[in-house]
Amino acid sequence: MSLTISIDAMGGDHGPQVVIPAAISALKKHPDVTLILVGDEQTIHSHLQKNNVNNEPRLIVHHASQQVEMDELPSQALRGKKDSSMRVAINLVKEGRAAACVSAGNTGALMATARFVLKTLPGIERPAIVSALPTMKGHTYVLDLGANVDSSAAHLVQFALMGSVLAELVDGKDKPKVGLLNIGSEEIKGNERVKEASRLLEQTDLNYIGYVEGDGLYHGEVDVLVCDGFVGNVALKTSEGVVHMIRHYLRQSFSRNWLTKLAGLIASPVLKHFRNELDPRAYNGANLIGLQGIVIKSHGGADEFAFANAINIAIIEAAKDVPKNITKHLEVLLEGQVL
Amino acid sequence: MSLTISIDAMGGDHGPQVVIPAAISALKKHPDVTLILVGDEQTIHSHLQKNNVNNEPRLIVHHASQQVEMDELPSQALRGKKDSSMRVAINLVKEGRAAACVSAGNTGALMATARFVLKTLPGIERPAIVSALPTMKGHTYVLDLGANVDSSAAHLVQFALMGSVLAELVDGKDKPKVGLLNIGSEEIKGNERVKEASRLLEQTDLNYIGYVEGDGLYHGEVDVLVCDGFVGNVALKTSEGVVHMIRHYLRQSFSRNWLTKLAGLIASPVLKHFRNELDPRAYNGANLIGLQGIVIKSHGGADEFAFANAINIAIIEAAKDVPKNITKHLEVLLEGQVL
Repeated sequence: MSLTISIDAMGGDHGPQVVIPAAISALKKHPDVTLILVGDEQTIHSHLQKNNVNNEPRLIVHHASQQVEMDELPSQALRGKKDSSMRVAINLVKEGRAAACVSAGNTGALMATARFVLKTLPGIERPAIVSALPTMKGHTYVLDLGANVDSSAAHLVQFALMGSVLAELVDGKDKPKVGLLNIGSEEIKGNERVKEASRLLEQTDLNYIGYVEGDGLYHGEVDVLVCDGFVGNVALKTSEGVVHMIRHYLRQSFSRNWLTKLAGLIASPVLKHFRNELDPRAYNGANLIGLQGIVIKSHGGADEFAFANAINIAIIEAAKDVPKNITKHLEVLLEGQVL
Repeated sequence: MSLTISIDAMGGDHGPQVVIPAAISALKKHPDVTLILVGDEQTIHSHLQKNNVNNEPRLIVHHASQQVEMDELPSQALRGKKDSSMRVAINLVKEGRAAACVSAGNTGALMATARFVLKTLPGIERPAIVSALPTMKGHTYVLDLGANVDSSAAHLVQFALMGSVLAELVDGKDKPKVGLLNIGSEEIKGNERVKEASRLLEQTDLNYIGYVEGDGLYHGEVDVLVCDGFVGNVALKTSEGVVHMIRHYLRQSFSRNWLTKLAGLIASPVLKHFRNELDPRAYNGANLIGLQGIVIKSHGGADEFAFANAINIAIIEAAKDVPKNITKHLEVLLEGQVL
């Protein structure tokens, strides 16, 4: 099956320097895919030459005269950067010329622009940010990771549905297990919105298994974990902080003296294997889900390997037509009058 | 200075089996402290004998005929267990016979009972759960860890004040840095309550440095991190989950074959040093702060070392009279009409 994906070649901390080699390596992996590189024509061509790529018919350069800065306000980008590489890449999805787009640019601007250009799917009030996080049993889709604060119970149910469709289509999971992130220390668990969402989820045809606490995420208790964007963002960032701190102390423990350094040298292949198991780059690529089109957000600091992974996610989701399947599932929910 | 601390000898997953050896080891460390062991007299005496302790004048046994179960509803414990070891230990604080109490029992029941018996400090509407968490620079007090959901802006300011007093008194920090946990991915950061709390905190004499994201916690950006109990509990449990998962993968990486096992053997002193650096037992002992008395909650599954640490925290806070100092600081805030 032949697919075309548009790529914001200028976005991210490293821009074309990372995006273009990543695109070239993604092309090799997917012989049926065409990539449209959107951004400053001259810059893109010079990077293609640097990578010894000339006249590759599956790499199309599409000029865009502007660029959204990493710290630019979303509203400014939306109003003032109508020919940005980010916006044009999204426009190509809207026009049906690309089946998905990928950007490592400013998250807020990407969400605002994608929402403005593509609109949400019928029945979805708010798009969410979803990403797979590694667990002891594989991975779990967590949403929302920060697009929405103060999500209502109905929004949480919509997130659950979207996450479930993703796990089913992308991972081929039959009846993915869906959980609601909650706390368990009080007599009456959680807040009102979570409890109301739980009541609603019990009425759906989703495989809703109930509340999951923070540690249950990494134990892999569910395939999809649903939460408000404030809570999800805190959980994600906190996790990143813990991993960073553990690396710091691990490195420190191995570099105290020549004996520990020697032990570190001997253990280094094992430690490398361990790092690979939890390599965050292998999880790079969050989905702005709930839109009439596929938009994949790469981490701003992504390297070539990580960005290629985000392109890979875009290709898989485009091939499975995630948005259409969300709509189909949503219709079932709406018929059942749950929402 | 001579201090008396009451201890719920029956609480926790292991009860007197852990509590009594921990109490004995705490006594050795603190020659001026007297401990009141509350619970079934016979059981306590038999455990004291098992540990070869007879006629120790600084270990007082105080009988209580009931025991709160770990899964008992707080309301049931409050109504039906008026002579529980937990309740009696708290009563001793209320009566001024103990300067603080420690329990590894059911968190919900402990909070409900402590709040009912001791009442909150004037000006504090809701007690919070606060604990020090390890960071790359030492530790940070995080509150609330799960006592309250949907905390208002005023509650968050009260949490900030209590955490600041704790960091100042316990750690001797001058003007402890206080941060508000927030997310940074959207144009207008965070939710309304966090933004309002930020405006209020800027008017206090606290050393409020602004918003901190989840990863900033473990980077040690602040001495005190303030958040709603739902968010704080998710951050805490998620962190525990990450640590658990990393241990799992680290163990797995070292046990793949005889070569990796050998590397593990050679690296084992280093790995042990690393584990000790982040030993959660060294952080055992959360404070139910905001009450007219000191109540320290130990983890239910605490071992002897961990429970002794919780006793240690109770002793330090009692010596510094944390509640009185909170009231003093609160009066300054109230005079300034911030709250």
